[in-house]
Amino acid sequence: MVKNIEKRGELVIQSAPQTIDDLMDWISGFSDAEGPGTTRLLYSPSWIKAQHALKEKFEELGMMVEFDAVGNLFATVAGTEQPNEVIATGSHVDTVARGGRLDGQLGIMAGYLAVKELLEKEGKPKKSLQIISMAEEEGSRFPYAFWGSKNIFGIADPKDVEDISDAQGIRFTDAMRAAGFDFLEGTPKFDRIAAFLELHIEQGNFLENTGKKVGVVNAIVGQKRYTVILKGEANHAGTTLMEYRKDTVECMAWIITQSIDKAKAEGSPLVLTFGRVEPKPNTVNVVPGETLFSIDCRHTDAQTLDRFTLEIEEDMRAIAAKMGIQIEIDKWMDEAPVPMDARIIETIESVCKDSGLSYQVMHSGAGHDSQIFAPRVPTGMIFVPSVGGISHNPAEHTEAEDIQQGVQALAETLKRLAY
Amino acid sequence: MVKNIEKRGELVIQSAPQTIDDLMDWISGFSDAEGPGTTRLLYSPSWIKAQHALKEKFEELGMMVEFDAVGNLFATVAGTEQPNEVIATGSHVDTVARGGRLDGQLGIMAGYLAVKELLEKEGKPKKSLQIISMAEEEGSRFPYAFWGSKNIFGIADPKDVEDISDAQGIRFTDAMRAAGFDFLEGTPKFDRIAAFLELHIEQGNFLENTGKKVGVVNAIVGQKRYTVILKGEANHAGTTLMEYRKDTVECMAWIITQSIDKAKAEGSPLVLTFGRVEPKPNTVNVVPGETLFSIDCRHTDAQTLDRFTLEIEEDMRAIAAKMGIQIEIDKWMDEAPVPMDARIIETIESVCKDSGLSYQVMHSGAGHDSQIFAPRVPTGMIFVPSVGGISHNPAEHTEAEDIQQGVQALAETLKRLAY
Repeated sequence: MVKNIEKRGELVIQSAPQTIDDLMDWISGFSDAEGPGTTRLLYSPSWIKAQHALKEKFEELGMMVEFDAVGNLFATVAGTEQPNEVIATGSHVDTVARGGRLDGQLGIMAGYLAVKELLEKEGKPKKSLQIISMAEEEGSRFPYAFWGSKNIFGIADPKDVEDISDAQGIRFTDAMRAAGFDFLEGTPKFDRIAAFLELHIEQGNFLENTGKKVGVVNAIVGQKRYTVILKGEANHAGTTLMEYRKDTVECMAWIITQSIDKAKAEGSPLVLTFGRVEPKPNTVNVVPGETLFSIDCRHTDAQTLDRFTLEIEEDMRAIAAKMGIQIEIDKWMDEAPVPMDARIIETIESVCKDSGLSYQVMHSGAGHDSQIFAPRVPTGMIFVPSVGGISHNPAEHTEAEDIQQGVQALAETLKRLAY
Repeated sequence: MVKNIEKRGELVIQSAPQTIDDLMDWISGFSDAEGPGTTRLLYSPSWIKAQHALKEKFEELGMMVEFDAVGNLFATVAGTEQPNEVIATGSHVDTVARGGRLDGQLGIMAGYLAVKELLEKEGKPKKSLQIISMAEEEGSRFPYAFWGSKNIFGIADPKDVEDISDAQGIRFTDAMRAAGFDFLEGTPKFDRIAAFLELHIEQGNFLENTGKKVGVVNAIVGQKRYTVILKGEANHAGTTLMEYRKDTVECMAWIITQSIDKAKAEGSPLVLTFGRVEPKPNTVNVVPGETLFSIDCRHTDAQTLDRFTLEIEEDMRAIAAKMGIQIEIDKWMDEAPVPMDARIIETIESVCKDSGLSYQVMHSGAGHDSQIFAPRVPTGMIFVPSVGGISHNPAEHTEAEDIQQGVQALAETLKRLAY
């Protein structure tokens, strides 16, 4: 256990060295289930323990540590000159079920290491420095994501979670209150954030493939998701000649090949995925009369994403019409791309250049807490490489020396913003 | 209930008119389950009742009626000149679960009507006339098909059914013995079949589309079935750029479009179906790392079927290799096409011409008992149209006047062969 030094508000620097590996082992130990992997769902026993252990850990640095209404944890060192200008960093403390040891919590521990180093080497900052351990981002326990970051800005609507329950039937509100938290009333408690930085694993293999160690994120992709249902005619696979068929798997195959060809021609950062395919009746000897499939399309530029997906929609309708097949297109997710703050991107880049770090400006193909911050306060993200692009999996891994470069970029950027 | 007149072997003609509709309603009533549809699985209570009711019905015509060892029912009128030359007709008495009122049993009732009419109008035949109500063809209760017809020729291996059970865990042998039957020992009892005719619904929409009422079958297609597994890489749908993907759904889509294009170019009677598709993990936001799909390919010509499927196999390997995706191709069914007897085809055709019936020579895209008979005795099939091509479904339907034309073709062909 971590000893509670109880010297809140006073600068106490623990001199014992703590490697990032030690820290990640320590935080990953707070899990709802035995390994492999870490399972720490919102408001679960291990989530409560982790947040309280982090509170003690930040207090050991002499930081002021407080929870907000819903359970976001804020650790603050007051600035000596502009204490109301808060330079914040952090990420989410929750994980997916059987997640890895990095997604989310690396951003909290990186913030801890960066702030610790800054306090040791530079003393108190001019502006306030803050580490945020956000309550929830994944949507793994309840069907609601970004509960933590949305509450920081008072934009989470209690109505959206009042009627939701987890897989065990436990209601969101009951779980929240049992953990000692409740809906935010009035304005958020920590509303002086002047800038936000989030360090996160890439969860892809772009850095690995380019050989760079630090990703300077310029935007988080917008994404549209669809469910498409094709309705043709179920027929006997032997007795129905090819010219009399309305084969929905064939129709889907034409849609997929044509759309992916177009996506490749459009070029990066556009990505297009047909991840789910469910024909009916799904048996070897029946021409499939109905097929459901999913589309996931992402791009960093809103106009390009809109134009491309509209083209794909038109193409799909044309292919289906040509084959005499009915098509139902349901777009159930439509999130706009979120650009990061230009000045912060520039600052991180110049930090990398000045520190001789191997970096690459890139976009994020996945969603992050930063997309809630970015429209509201100047925000930037730092990526570290994911070995094999693997994430949401116990095999999630980043080499310690790569994390070190990310932490260095974070610390130096925080320094330029807060000192 | 049908009255048992018990005048076995004596010619007793029931003069009360029985329409085909009445007969089909009567036989369809023997079902294991309440409607919709008829469910009459091998050796079930309704199967036993139906076979015994048919026995009585044939006996009313004064026919000799006997079961063989496994439960095939044979009703015979001995020929006056060549009694050992048996001209047989019939089909299977079992149905699929929730089947229609025609598949299989129409061939038995059509045989009944044809023989009844011949006996009434023409008296006793020179060669013997026989109606066979075959025990099983569908493979619906146990994973074994053609149990009835294979036992007629002594080619069913008891070893193949000894260890199989139905969905309720009832063993094949126990079900068979409980119904009063057992394995065939020695040679089959009814081995003097000189010709076999089967009337069946088309189960496709070829006759409907051509507007013809009688199908004269020239061959039953051969069929090959495959399970193909593609192994690529499961990746995050947002963070994995298009150029780094090994997307198995995309690979499958290329295989399907290219193969179906080739199948259409090859032309009828080749049919090619991709009926089953199962990607993993089958979720919207993961590039599918593995995809399983099925192939069903049929043609009436063995050489063409072999050549075409070999081409498709090579194409699939080439497409997968180009995308860096592993492919496993498992061909688990390989049945050769079965031609019908040329002289019988000719006889049915000339019957149709002479009787002014609207007919079409065609192949069967589905398997039938006749494919077991055809390599062993001269065999022919007569199809009647399936409304909408629908079969294996309670909605299975053929207009009564179309069935009438089929029965007329059957009766006249039996007459030419047996009188």
